[in-house]
Amino acid sequence: MADIPGPAFFIGKGDDTLISFGSGQPDMPPPRQAFDILKTYSAFKYGLIQGEVSLLTELAKEYPGSRPEDFVVTNGASEAIDLVLRVIARPKGKVLLPRPYYYSYPHNVHFAGMTPVYYDLEKGKINFETFKEALEGCSAVMINSPSNPTGTVQEVETLKQIEKLCEEKGTYVISDEVYKDIIYVRENYLLHGPRVVTVNSFSKTYGMCGLRVGYVYSQNKKLIEDIIEMKTHTAMNTSTVGQMMALAALRSPKSYIAHNLETWKTRRDLMFNGMKELGLDLWSPEGAFYVLPKFKNSTQAMSDLYHTHKVITYDGAWFGAPGRLRFSYALDEQKIIEGLRRVREFLGREYASYS
Amino acid sequence: MADIPGPAFFIGKGDDTLISFGSGQPDMPPPRQAFDILKTYSAFKYGLIQGEVSLLTELAKEYPGSRPEDFVVTNGASEAIDLVLRVIARPKGKVLLPRPYYYSYPHNVHFAGMTPVYYDLEKGKINFETFKEALEGCSAVMINSPSNPTGTVQEVETLKQIEKLCEEKGTYVISDEVYKDIIYVRENYLLHGPRVVTVNSFSKTYGMCGLRVGYVYSQNKKLIEDIIEMKTHTAMNTSTVGQMMALAALRSPKSYIAHNLETWKTRRDLMFNGMKELGLDLWSPEGAFYVLPKFKNSTQAMSDLYHTHKVITYDGAWFGAPGRLRFSYALDEQKIIEGLRRVREFLGREYASYS
Repeated sequence: MADIPGPAFFIGKGDDTLISFGSGQPDMPPPRQAFDILKTYSAFKYGLIQGEVSLLTELAKEYPGSRPEDFVVTNGASEAIDLVLRVIARPKGKVLLPRPYYYSYPHNVHFAGMTPVYYDLEKGKINFETFKEALEGCSAVMINSPSNPTGTVQEVETLKQIEKLCEEKGTYVISDEVYKDIIYVRENYLLHGPRVVTVNSFSKTYGMCGLRVGYVYSQNKKLIEDIIEMKTHTAMNTSTVGQMMALAALRSPKSYIAHNLETWKTRRDLMFNGMKELGLDLWSPEGAFYVLPKFKNSTQAMSDLYHTHKVITYDGAWFGAPGRLRFSYALDEQKIIEGLRRVREFLGREYASYS
Repeated sequence: MADIPGPAFFIGKGDDTLISFGSGQPDMPPPRQAFDILKTYSAFKYGLIQGEVSLLTELAKEYPGSRPEDFVVTNGASEAIDLVLRVIARPKGKVLLPRPYYYSYPHNVHFAGMTPVYYDLEKGKINFETFKEALEGCSAVMINSPSNPTGTVQEVETLKQIEKLCEEKGTYVISDEVYKDIIYVRENYLLHGPRVVTVNSFSKTYGMCGLRVGYVYSQNKKLIEDIIEMKTHTAMNTSTVGQMMALAALRSPKSYIAHNLETWKTRRDLMFNGMKELGLDLWSPEGAFYVLPKFKNSTQAMSDLYHTHKVITYDGAWFGAPGRLRFSYALDEQKIIEGLRRVREFLGREYASYS
């Protein structure tokens, strides 16, 4: 049945006749300043494992109350999460994950030798009582707001309750905030606390997915030291040329982010309204660039949409949400319109089976 | 006593009055072609997890009998080793390491949830009988020829015996050949076999340490698939810009490597003869760019050399060889001469304590 085994199947499939709602990466390029630095780039030696001092210093300006030494620059948020989990891993440790979840999380937890424990989001939101009950016996919890794949943003009140509870219990909170600069409904709320580990990257905010620059931010000195120690042996410094591109992006005018946010809003409206018109059942998109509408037989629907209509979507089952399809709207308006047209045609023919 | 906790202590210490025999990285820049590609570089999207097809294709040309799909491009050899060990890790698994060893190996084994087992090299060489005995009960073995930190190269006959034994026993052979293009005594011998996993990088051959591009090569299809699957969640693609620099380096004239080898030979002779003149006891340097002479109280000697003579060396104890100091000769001739002068002065004053 699953002729398409996972998201990696679609990577590199760039045929012009395809409409891809698949990949979760911005199609808008990084600020031109990021490429400008390449013209005179000449460094080749090892850098500090923690990251280039200039980049650490610039990052500290982004987080009030932080210091350069509170950060470690990583090979994207992926390595950041991997390192954090490996460093805090304890035998028989359990890590609490929301469901739907970003598809790598359960793998990351397993790879660190721990066990994932799940609680279900309600319409994409955390119910604090459910969370609290599920937290029992867990040594860490992952929070992802805005969320991939739900496109929802958690309530500030809930996040504060989680902070308080986890501080009391001594539970690590790994807050994956890679979509923090793509929120439509409010400012980002940065989770705080002695056990909070913030993970972020340059991939979504600055369109630098393939360049792999992310970071960990924590005020827990021991944790940062342990991450540096591990990274010394498992990867060494993050690519110095990528770091310099990230630094240039960070120093570029903030209007870049604001301008992109306007583009994301336009696309979101187009996508959300288009899906409502198709009669699909989905949550209001509050952040990131995903919607997760219900689709009966989602695995089959994904496969059929790809093979018969050349539309790429991701099976909700990959994110712990069978019966839904994830649509990324990281593509231009004309393609969104054409993609929705194809989905309409697909549903018109097969409506009874899929929605 | 150990006021200098490890090699990372010295990273970034670039004071002009220092002579550093510490860091194991070429001071000769990559081929200019690697920087040339930056002038028009504009890609920013995710790449294939396995690596850019153009780079995989070029790598396959370097290894007779290989195919592009036999490689995975990684964040340096460090990530390559980490991924291989994690993928083959079994509960209570043991990995056989030579002693002296590259200082990351025991950490890599522990981080993968396995236990290192050691056998001692004899004058920097593998005694096959010792190896065979120590291999009992191990699921993998690491081979590092030419070796960091010993500077020795293993006999081809021994390597073939190891191939045969490990194939019979079904033991993985992880062959770290990052110094394969810096051998003074013969051509490199590429280890072969269904259980052999070759690890290499662009760091030493092409002076690209900070750019972090390495790779795994194996004809074991399942192993390659497992590595790609793990890397999908722990790091995603290796920096695309680094990969394009590596590709340009690989396509540059091979005279670059030959020319650098001549430079390494000159430095090796200077270093080896200088050390012999100082009366130091060391093995003949056959490859890589290290010597590992005996130094009594090596931890104290390293500290004193740094604090009193501004000479950086690495304590042999970090490599499982207490009572020796590792000198890298990855620095220009004038600095080697000045460094040796300072060591002579140091020994003249403190000779009784250190040699």
